[in-house]
Amino acid sequence: MTSSDSSNDSYGLLKTINSPSDLRKLPREKLKPLADQLRAFVLDSVSKTGGHLSSNLGTVELTVALHYVFQTPEDRLVWDVGHQTYPHKILTGRRDQMATLRQWEGLSGFPLRTESEYDTFGTAHSSTSISAAFGMAQAAALKGENRWAVAIIGDGAMTAGMAFEALNNAGVADKGRLLVILNDNDMSISPPVGALNRYLAQLMSGQFYAAAKNVGKTVLKPVPPLFELAKRFEQQAKGMVVPATLFEKFGFNYVGPIDGHDLESLIPTLENLRQLDGPQFLHVVTKKGRGYKRAEADPIAYHGPSKFDPAVGIVKPSTAPKQTFTQVFGRWLCDMAGHDQRLIGITPAMREGSGMVEFHQRFPARYYDVGIAEQHAVTFAAGMATEGLKPVVAIYSTFLQRAYDQLIHDVALQNLPVVFALDRAGLVGADGATHAGAYDIPFVRCIPNMAMACPADERECRQLLSTAYAQNHPVCVRYPRGAGVGVEPLDDLQSLPYGKAEVRRTLDVSLLQERQPRTAILAFGTLLYPALTAAEALNATVVNMRWAKPLDEQLLQLIAQQHDILVTLEEGAIMGGAGSAVLEALQRAGISKPVLQLGLQDAFIAHGDPAKLLAMQGLDAAGIEASVRQFWLAKNSQSN
Amino acid sequence: MTSSDSSNDSYGLLKTINSPSDLRKLPREKLKPLADQLRAFVLDSVSKTGGHLSSNLGTVELTVALHYVFQTPEDRLVWDVGHQTYPHKILTGRRDQMATLRQWEGLSGFPLRTESEYDTFGTAHSSTSISAAFGMAQAAALKGENRWAVAIIGDGAMTAGMAFEALNNAGVADKGRLLVILNDNDMSISPPVGALNRYLAQLMSGQFYAAAKNVGKTVLKPVPPLFELAKRFEQQAKGMVVPATLFEKFGFNYVGPIDGHDLESLIPTLENLRQLDGPQFLHVVTKKGRGYKRAEADPIAYHGPSKFDPAVGIVKPSTAPKQTFTQVFGRWLCDMAGHDQRLIGITPAMREGSGMVEFHQRFPARYYDVGIAEQHAVTFAAGMATEGLKPVVAIYSTFLQRAYDQLIHDVALQNLPVVFALDRAGLVGADGATHAGAYDIPFVRCIPNMAMACPADERECRQLLSTAYAQNHPVCVRYPRGAGVGVEPLDDLQSLPYGKAEVRRTLDVSLLQERQPRTAILAFGTLLYPALTAAEALNATVVNMRWAKPLDEQLLQLIAQQHDILVTLEEGAIMGGAGSAVLEALQRAGISKPVLQLGLQDAFIAHGDPAKLLAMQGLDAAGIEASVRQFWLAKNSQSN
Repeated sequence: MTSSDSSNDSYGLLKTINSPSDLRKLPREKLKPLADQLRAFVLDSVSKTGGHLSSNLGTVELTVALHYVFQTPEDRLVWDVGHQTYPHKILTGRRDQMATLRQWEGLSGFPLRTESEYDTFGTAHSSTSISAAFGMAQAAALKGENRWAVAIIGDGAMTAGMAFEALNNAGVADKGRLLVILNDNDMSISPPVGALNRYLAQLMSGQFYAAAKNVGKTVLKPVPPLFELAKRFEQQAKGMVVPATLFEKFGFNYVGPIDGHDLESLIPTLENLRQLDGPQFLHVVTKKGRGYKRAEADPIAYHGPSKFDPAVGIVKPSTAPKQTFTQVFGRWLCDMAGHDQRLIGITPAMREGSGMVEFHQRFPARYYDVGIAEQHAVTFAAGMATEGLKPVVAIYSTFLQRAYDQLIHDVALQNLPVVFALDRAGLVGADGATHAGAYDIPFVRCIPNMAMACPADERECRQLLSTAYAQNHPVCVRYPRGAGVGVEPLDDLQSLPYGKAEVRRTLDVSLLQERQPRTAILAFGTLLYPALTAAEALNATVVNMRWAKPLDEQLLQLIAQQHDILVTLEEGAIMGGAGSAVLEALQRAGISKPVLQLGLQDAFIAHGDPAKLLAMQGLDAAGIEASVRQFWLAKNSQSN
Repeated sequence: MTSSDSSNDSYGLLKTINSPSDLRKLPREKLKPLADQLRAFVLDSVSKTGGHLSSNLGTVELTVALHYVFQTPEDRLVWDVGHQTYPHKILTGRRDQMATLRQWEGLSGFPLRTESEYDTFGTAHSSTSISAAFGMAQAAALKGENRWAVAIIGDGAMTAGMAFEALNNAGVADKGRLLVILNDNDMSISPPVGALNRYLAQLMSGQFYAAAKNVGKTVLKPVPPLFELAKRFEQQAKGMVVPATLFEKFGFNYVGPIDGHDLESLIPTLENLRQLDGPQFLHVVTKKGRGYKRAEADPIAYHGPSKFDPAVGIVKPSTAPKQTFTQVFGRWLCDMAGHDQRLIGITPAMREGSGMVEFHQRFPARYYDVGIAEQHAVTFAAGMATEGLKPVVAIYSTFLQRAYDQLIHDVALQNLPVVFALDRAGLVGADGATHAGAYDIPFVRCIPNMAMACPADERECRQLLSTAYAQNHPVCVRYPRGAGVGVEPLDDLQSLPYGKAEVRRTLDVSLLQERQPRTAILAFGTLLYPALTAAEALNATVVNMRWAKPLDEQLLQLIAQQHDILVTLEEGAIMGGAGSAVLEALQRAGISKPVLQLGLQDAFIAHGDPAKLLAMQGLDAAGIEASVRQFWLAKNSQSN
């Protein structure tokens, strides 16, 4: 496939489909060419905007088949995780908007109820789809409506506990029309189950072959060599009967596995399932990156690429990009692991995203990928900590929400020394509201025994990780997505003073203008740098607070005494956040002082360019300056 | 069994056991009489202190066998939920302290690391044990230690997603010595699995009968009639092979089911398992309430009784006890359900605790007990809400922590009208720190679209539930354990004004003493009443705030202008709580004013008498008065 495939002429059939009802009018033999155009369009579109690729190339036929067989939007489709819904968006009237994908006021990269009636449930975090679809199915039954609810869930998402909770509940339902589709593209039952596995492979060969032999008939890819087919068949056969048995135990009628790229298998099977009663379970086998050979060969690299030329593939930038906080963490983890045998690295299925590839390679015995299982990850770490080890749980801020009770009940209450490396704290850009790490300061701060560090730059990130690691109680270190200002980390593993802030800039009293209040900006985290810029213009003091908990109350009191007004600044929810910690501490110290709290307002913030989003929240240097000047005006008019 | 069994003479053998090493010195034939004495002691002890009974009577032999076979504390026992650990506490040197159970500075009702080296992991919330034990087993392997880690988990707890996450991870471990014991006392795989079930029952009969025939040989209970044995066998046979298959799929070596009351089965089996490599899974069958026929007949009533006479059993009090908030909720739920067909009641396995028995009886089609599955419960509710139904999720404050991400991601982000009835908000008394609903205001308040109501009494609880239900977005209503002051709810379903507070008492300016600041107490929730008492002595204004979010900022500003100091009051964490919401709002309004924040300090609070605990936190009328007077002194000395 080359980029010339993406010329407009290639999409003649696709352009006639402006809604699923158009699709359902097509003669069945047109579906295959439509799927081919849809796949080409996805590749073309994502190569221009960036976004999720491998997963969307894998769901093209499944999406066509679902909208063809089910009466969407009357029947409900719930896409687990939801980053595989580009074909769904294209077929449901949003083809022309794909150029705006993941941009401000453009299409979301996930299903969004406010975007389309075909997006029945907003997803993005894993493993919610069965619960939601089961709720819809039960609601329909209670209302006497005959609609179907269909959850489409990947094999990875299926390992999370929540999916099992939903199966356990839904499998015994005596009403409602629920279909769960397991989109199996990398079944990870490892290691091989030996004799049983071989037996099952034999048992399934007839059935699977019938489906698998259709593999490779697409226009986008030459017929795969036989050995690949055989290998693929063997891999699939492993997983095949094991989950079947398992899902039947939960009360579902299990059908499959069938080839998820073969419309001639998919459509009759779905039509058949629609006629059945009771909870239905369909197992389809797909290939991530299907039809674009570079993505098939390296689905991880093509999981969520930036813009690229499909004819060339992803090209490594010639100049090294700025070091990200994720990389700073990854390097620190390796260095500290080399230094301290007790260190254990734990990730809930985010090895790449959390920067743990090198750690995994160098310290395999101390690396634990526990699967999409945040609850288990945290309590597993707690168990290790009781035995004197030093677990470091690398987890996105937004995903720590999934282990909140375990954080409180298993880690904090027992005061166990676990370090939580919270990546993606604050706004995350293109992934939008579902992935924003906006709430970690409020939800962690209220837990006794917990501490929360907020490094301002790369060097401090490493230092505060070392500081956290040196404590004998749980500590979170939160840092944002991407790169910081570029302060090179030091090579050592030295700590900073625990719970201590530092004054980074002191206002010049001699330069204060008439009626200008003496102002101190208290910055938590990377917003320190725009604060410093604003402070130049404002002639303000700037404190790098470093710790949201414990607060450096001593320094705070001193600063409060020396200034007329304080400004708190954090990339996180204002409500209950670090600024509120400042308010509480001032009151405890008996200080009543005007404080302006800057941070994220009480609203969900949609996807868009990260810098632009920060600016829109008034959290860039210009915004900070403007807010402070406005606060001055308000204070002065009050005192008039 | 009568209370005369509890005379000291009956415990001759038990009294020789002051640690498991004493136990391990006993000849095996003494274990049975020891277990009998242990069971009698548990019954005697719990009947005098109150506490969990049924579950502890069910684990007597298992506890004896575990400490006999495993080298505790070198081998680690992790008891899931942990309310079944009284026999364990008695055998590990805490026999004489059982009289202090669940009292301030007495024994905890759960395992507690600070209480004993035999309590290897604090539990209380369900389904954490496998994760923790797996962590310990891996830690031991990494450290080159040969110890075992044993998780003992009930069949109810096994249905929670977290247990599956742990099995999924632990089953593929290539090192570590992990044994999971499924303590199966009410296997709830329903409905019967038909033909398969019958086939499995036949398959298992030989094996199970060998174990089951020992049932009924205890001194505490006559031999059960044959028909009961047969019935019991049949019930167990249903569950038996299904989970076996399932657990083997996860990579465990499955053994069982064996009779969990038969030491002659338990001990050889455990000795055998100790010699094996790889993850081990033992399925034991026990009976809740075992050996005390009243508890066997009604394990729910005897789940957690108050003091009672074992010879008589639990006696209903002759005078009706005060109505609890739980009952207020239960009645409201039925009334609103009668009024609105769209109402759905959802509980994660807490029908009794949440007051939903009558609702279940009267509205079975709209009642959903989803099992111990808080995550699923919340997203299931969200799914229903997307279809226009009105779900009410009844959940303890402490258990909502287990569905925090679902609350944010599935409910709040989509702004779905789900009502959360948060029982046990604040301190909970005998259950202690693990069950305290201390964090809900901070962790809910920071989420956009969420609201949080804090009723002050029974009448207001009903009114605020109606108010919450009338909104078109998610709302939490938090209320404490037990009864309030006794303000009878009205029969209607009228709302109160949304987000509005009310002034309940106004200070008398003419009676202000010299240098006495004009003081307003802003009370959130049931502490309104001690605040009113304190305000009489203080001559202070009292505002019933009713809503932690949205705050009644208009009234707040008015009150702030009219008073010199404000006092916020809540039964919840101060950090980030409702008082902090007041501080934030005052700053937004440009008001700098001294505020005293009263609530729960930043520490976990152990078990004890609820009133005493509140007083220790200074949250009774006397404490509030004292704190305010101290604040006055501090303010006056400051202004000198």
